[in-house]
Amino acid sequence: MSFFTSRWVDAPDCALEVEDGLLPGGFRAAGVAAGLKPSGALDVGLIVCDAEGATSAARFSRSGAQSAPVLITRQQSELAGLRAVVVNSGNANAATGEQGLLDAAAMRAAAGAIAGVPAEQVAVASTGVIGVPLPIDAVTDGITAAGARLRADGAAEFAEAIRTTDAFPKQVTLDVQLSGGTVRLSVQAKGAGMISPNFATLLVFAQTDAEIDADEVDLLLAVCTKRSFDRISVDGQLSTSDTIVLQASGASGVRVEAESDAERAFGEVLDAALRQIALLVAKDGEGARRVGRVIVRGGDQRGVERVAHAVADSPLVKTALYGADPNWGRIIQAVGAALPGTAPLDVDIEIEGIAVCAHGGYVEHDAQTLAEAVRGDEVEYEITLPGEGAETERFFSDLGHEYITINADYTT
Amino acid sequence: MSFFTSRWVDAPDCALEVEDGLLPGGFRAAGVAAGLKPSGALDVGLIVCDAEGATSAARFSRSGAQSAPVLITRQQSELAGLRAVVVNSGNANAATGEQGLLDAAAMRAAAGAIAGVPAEQVAVASTGVIGVPLPIDAVTDGITAAGARLRADGAAEFAEAIRTTDAFPKQVTLDVQLSGGTVRLSVQAKGAGMISPNFATLLVFAQTDAEIDADEVDLLLAVCTKRSFDRISVDGQLSTSDTIVLQASGASGVRVEAESDAERAFGEVLDAALRQIALLVAKDGEGARRVGRVIVRGGDQRGVERVAHAVADSPLVKTALYGADPNWGRIIQAVGAALPGTAPLDVDIEIEGIAVCAHGGYVEHDAQTLAEAVRGDEVEYEITLPGEGAETERFFSDLGHEYITINADYTT
Repeated sequence: MSFFTSRWVDAPDCALEVEDGLLPGGFRAAGVAAGLKPSGALDVGLIVCDAEGATSAARFSRSGAQSAPVLITRQQSELAGLRAVVVNSGNANAATGEQGLLDAAAMRAAAGAIAGVPAEQVAVASTGVIGVPLPIDAVTDGITAAGARLRADGAAEFAEAIRTTDAFPKQVTLDVQLSGGTVRLSVQAKGAGMISPNFATLLVFAQTDAEIDADEVDLLLAVCTKRSFDRISVDGQLSTSDTIVLQASGASGVRVEAESDAERAFGEVLDAALRQIALLVAKDGEGARRVGRVIVRGGDQRGVERVAHAVADSPLVKTALYGADPNWGRIIQAVGAALPGTAPLDVDIEIEGIAVCAHGGYVEHDAQTLAEAVRGDEVEYEITLPGEGAETERFFSDLGHEYITINADYTT
Repeated sequence: MSFFTSRWVDAPDCALEVEDGLLPGGFRAAGVAAGLKPSGALDVGLIVCDAEGATSAARFSRSGAQSAPVLITRQQSELAGLRAVVVNSGNANAATGEQGLLDAAAMRAAAGAIAGVPAEQVAVASTGVIGVPLPIDAVTDGITAAGARLRADGAAEFAEAIRTTDAFPKQVTLDVQLSGGTVRLSVQAKGAGMISPNFATLLVFAQTDAEIDADEVDLLLAVCTKRSFDRISVDGQLSTSDTIVLQASGASGVRVEAESDAERAFGEVLDAALRQIALLVAKDGEGARRVGRVIVRGGDQRGVERVAHAVADSPLVKTALYGADPNWGRIIQAVGAALPGTAPLDVDIEIEGIAVCAHGGYVEHDAQTLAEAVRGDEVEYEITLPGEGAETERFFSDLGHEYITINADYTT
């Protein structure tokens, strides 16, 4: 398979990557150019599920400055029974006040009308510049045009329409062999770690034709989000606009019961797909060279999370990753900063399996071997704190000249 | 005066900058080259107070990975009665295990012997590379050599000896007019915000010949540190090695009583001096262009601190500062990220006094005027949250190409 490229994702045996361009049964999609992007690129996307009994779940940014579409969808839509998703790129409709809420509601109503479903069964998402009024007429015209183009093979153009600064597309379609038959899972995403000119907004839309109760859709999404998008380090941790939607049409007739083998198998595939997508987000960006993974063990859950966060967000660690610098002092500095008042801290550090620090002090190691080990595309750091039981991981992008160029030289 | 250059520091009326090179009465200092820096630059510094009744106070990094000198000084020295300070640059003696503790203790003992004071009255500090054993013989030879050079005008060479990557020295001597007479205050510091190849370690040593009880020295240092070094954003917030020491010899015979006018006046000068030094730290670094100040008002103390922290540490805000980009969307993103779960957030934002966001939505403003306003050396952001009462500020450096060059291309 060409999709599962990271050594940190186990490609599931029961899934086969397909490239026939078709969405799971029951779904149609389209993308059009509505004029929001000055380049004339696709900027309005629509996904419609034709199955009346569709189930779904959604997750959003927890930002205190949530965008208008996040507020409208989260507060006013039926998140367990979403039939349609409408997205625009080129404008985030964030920090746009009362008018922004009206515009997001208008987008939702227009998409509902085109899809033939109540507005409450539509999720709205927007990504792009902040604090600029949404050109709502252009967007609604785009929604009408997208409605006329809805097709079972429309996933690629939908994925194109939600892109902003992504250097490469992020989508996959997998056929999953379950005991009761084959189901399909498609995912389209956008997001570029540490590299977006405005925000590393994350939009992820996943569809399946499995038949899954809404509670189980929610559970699957919760578990898999926690192991994927909650574990990547992007600017500021929280965009105004992050949105993740999983929809199940049931069109395959293959049922995924709670706590069944089928659910475990389907969950494994969803987990692998979302982890690989999350890694692609961390890896994206012009000139980004490497992705890091930090694994933290020991201590308590709060401690390992703090340490993983501190290491993955440290500009010193990120620049070292970019420069293939095996400077482990930067790792212990981040660990110490995450756990104030605990000195002297009994911490062990390994980089690519090479022990560099034990009980808080340096360990003799071959500098040349270590320097070689940090030159690959993926670099792994393992940190062990005193105590047992807790464990977490985090993926992070490097920090290089291209980030500065894009972010310092771009002006709204 | 040439020292108080920031508009964010009020130069105190009762203080006069002096350049006679003399330390406050009762103090002698020296700096020597002991061979720790490959360049042959000064790398061991010593300050000795000859007054037996000297008082002092100290503050340290709260890192869980505190360096050996921080551990030894914090746990084993008499912080209220320090007579001597010994410092080396070129090696941080951090993550050096049991041997590191022995070496820090040996440095302390050597300095005590040279200064003729008990080891318990010596503070030890080290800055430089992490995880490499300290060449203790070279350091103790350096201490002996420094002891032979101790002079009342040795502050400049001491300041030189504690420098690592600082682009410019950070020191000042002020004569302070109090009602009871004139006292002198000298400060020597090192630290470079967001730019150090290894760590933005902060070392600050201040001396006065005022006569101040140890409790008051501690109180003055606590208040002034909170308003200066606790408010600058540097990498990871916490180095392994940050150390701040204030010593009072009493040699002037001018007494600074608790809660007197003299204490208020002396406190005002100490506050201004440490704030200006903190701003110099934020401003330091090859090619760093600008310093930002974010003021956050409203809400509760925890909320304003979180927001100030998030804005000052955001790589998106820092790159915008570097690029003179008036993109206020990056500010609201950081605010929202700092206050999860509070949407919709009623926040106002001003940049250089220009309102750009009110009640969470954009405010019409002249883009050209704003673009001009963010081109200066210092850029001020004011954020108002709902509610009243709390207020904080934070100073931060920008993030530019030079940071990447220095940090990515430097290899241990």
